[in-house]
Amino acid sequence: MIGRVTTRRPVLRITAEGRAHRPDTLAGEEPLELRVGGRALAVTMRTPGHDLELAHGFLLTEAVITTRTDIATARYCDSTDAAGRNTYNVLNFTLAPGVPAPAPGIERTFYTTSSCGICGKASLDAVRMSTRFPPAADPLRISATTLTALPAALRAGQRVFDSTGGLHAAALFTHTGDLLVTREDIGRHNAVDKTLGWALLNDRVPLTGCTLLVSGRASFELTQKAVMAGIPLLAAVSAPSALAVDLAEEAGLTLVGFLRNTSMNVYTGAERITAASPVHD
Amino acid sequence: MIGRVTTRRPVLRITAEGRAHRPDTLAGEEPLELRVGGRALAVTMRTPGHDLELAHGFLLTEAVITTRTDIATARYCDSTDAAGRNTYNVLNFTLAPGVPAPAPGIERTFYTTSSCGICGKASLDAVRMSTRFPPAADPLRISATTLTALPAALRAGQRVFDSTGGLHAAALFTHTGDLLVTREDIGRHNAVDKTLGWALLNDRVPLTGCTLLVSGRASFELTQKAVMAGIPLLAAVSAPSALAVDLAEEAGLTLVGFLRNTSMNVYTGAERITAASPVHD
Repeated sequence: MIGRVTTRRPVLRITAEGRAHRPDTLAGEEPLELRVGGRALAVTMRTPGHDLELAHGFLLTEAVITTRTDIATARYCDSTDAAGRNTYNVLNFTLAPGVPAPAPGIERTFYTTSSCGICGKASLDAVRMSTRFPPAADPLRISATTLTALPAALRAGQRVFDSTGGLHAAALFTHTGDLLVTREDIGRHNAVDKTLGWALLNDRVPLTGCTLLVSGRASFELTQKAVMAGIPLLAAVSAPSALAVDLAEEAGLTLVGFLRNTSMNVYTGAERITAASPVHD
Repeated sequence: MIGRVTTRRPVLRITAEGRAHRPDTLAGEEPLELRVGGRALAVTMRTPGHDLELAHGFLLTEAVITTRTDIATARYCDSTDAAGRNTYNVLNFTLAPGVPAPAPGIERTFYTTSSCGICGKASLDAVRMSTRFPPAADPLRISATTLTALPAALRAGQRVFDSTGGLHAAALFTHTGDLLVTREDIGRHNAVDKTLGWALLNDRVPLTGCTLLVSGRASFELTQKAVMAGIPLLAAVSAPSALAVDLAEEAGLTLVGFLRNTSMNVYTGAERITAASPVHD
C-alpha cells in the first residue's frame, strides 16, 4: 500500500525559459469506506496509509468510541478490483461487547440533518453535549517561544509534502514542544483524524497538556475534533473561522492562529500562553 | 446576511516585541442545509453569502439539475433562532415539472456508499457516466502567458481574504484571460460551487472555452466539479492529486498545477496550451 501514498506521473513543465517533459510525484487520493459491524458509516477521500489511525480518529471525534478497547476487531474488507487485488479501501470494525452501536441514521448526520432552525449555535450545542473530555480545566501552560518553534518542527516531518507539495499536515506536541506524532493527508480533516487516531491507539486520549498544530486554517470541524480528543490548545498556521473561535471559547480551548515566525494571534484562552520558556523536565 | 461574511473579534497579538490586544476580522462559517422538495439533501459548512449560487453549483455538479430552469422555486426556509430571527441557513428548492426528484438514498451517496470493492477506478467510472458535458472535444486554446497572469487576477478579486487571510477562492476566465467571476469560501468545494452556480444562473453552462482557477490544490472532488460543468481547463495554484490527474485524462480535461509566477506544470491535455499570446477578439 505504501506505493499508493505517492505516484509518479509525466508532466510538461512550462517556464519562461521553455518547455520540458519530466517525471513528477503526486500525492495519492483514494476513497476509504468505514464500516461498523458491516454497516457503511462514512466514505472519505484520503491519502492511503495510516488508515487504521484515520478510522480510529474519525470514530473518536464522531463520538462512536472513547478508547481503543471499544474496538474488538478491525480488518480490510476483502473487496477486490478488476484484477482480483484487495483494494484496501474498505475497513470494517466490530465493537467490543457493551459498546453501543452507532445510532440509526448516524450516517446521514455526517452530511445531512433534518433539524430545522440549523445555525451555528446548534452546531456548538451538539459538540458541547457530546464532549467527554472538556479541555476547560486543563492546566497546560506553554511559552510563546515554544509555540513559535512548532511550525518548523511540523514542516520537518512533512515527508510527502516535500515530494509532492500537495498535502495538509497535523502534529501533536507536548508542553515542552516535543513532537509526539505528525501525519499528512490530502484532506485536512484526515490529517487530524490520523494524528488523533495515533493518540487513541497509544492510550494517550484525552490528550491532556498537548498542543495540536495544523498546517492550514482552523475551521469549526478541526476545532471540534480537538475538543473531542481533550486537547487544551489548537494552533493553526493560518486563520480560524468565527465559528471555530466561538466553539473554542465555549469549550475552554486555547485557539492560536497565524502562528508564523516569531508571532501569533491568540483568540481564546490566552492564560495558557506564558512569556518565559518552560523548564524542561 | 452580509454582516455574517466576516466577524470582528478581539485578539491578543504576540510578537517578539511584546503583546497587544487588537480587533481582528474573521471569516464567517455556518452550516447551510440544502433541501429539494422539503427533503434534506446535504449540509455544508460555508461562509454565508452567494448561497443561491452555492446551491445551484452543488446541484449541478451532483447531477441533480442541468440548467437553472430545472429549479422552479428557491427560498430560505423559515427556520428561526432563539431570538426569532431567520437563520438563513436552510434553503429549500422545488424542481420544475418533469425534472426527476433526486434518487432515493442520494443523501447517503454524498458521504457513504454501500458498494464493496470501492476504489479510485469506481469513482472515475461514476463521474464519467454522469457527465453531460464531456470537455474532451472542447476546442479551447489558451497561451501560457495568459495562464500565468490568472493567479494575480484571482488574488485581486479576493476581498474577504485580504481582511481575514482565511478563505479559498475560485474564478472563471475566458480564453483571453478575462475574469468572469470570482468567489470565496472557507470551504474549497464551496468556492467552486458558488462560481459554477453563478455560471448556471447566467446560462453559461456548459462552460465551453473557459478556465477554472482554484487557489489551492486540485483534488478529485474539484476536478469532478469542473468536468460536470463542461469546463475544458482546470488550473490550480498548488498540486493535483494522482486521482485528479487520472480523472482529467479520462475526461479530456486539461489539468494545470503549480501555476505560479511565470511557470506551471501541465499534467493532461497540453495541446490546449499554446506558446504565443492569443489575439484578442
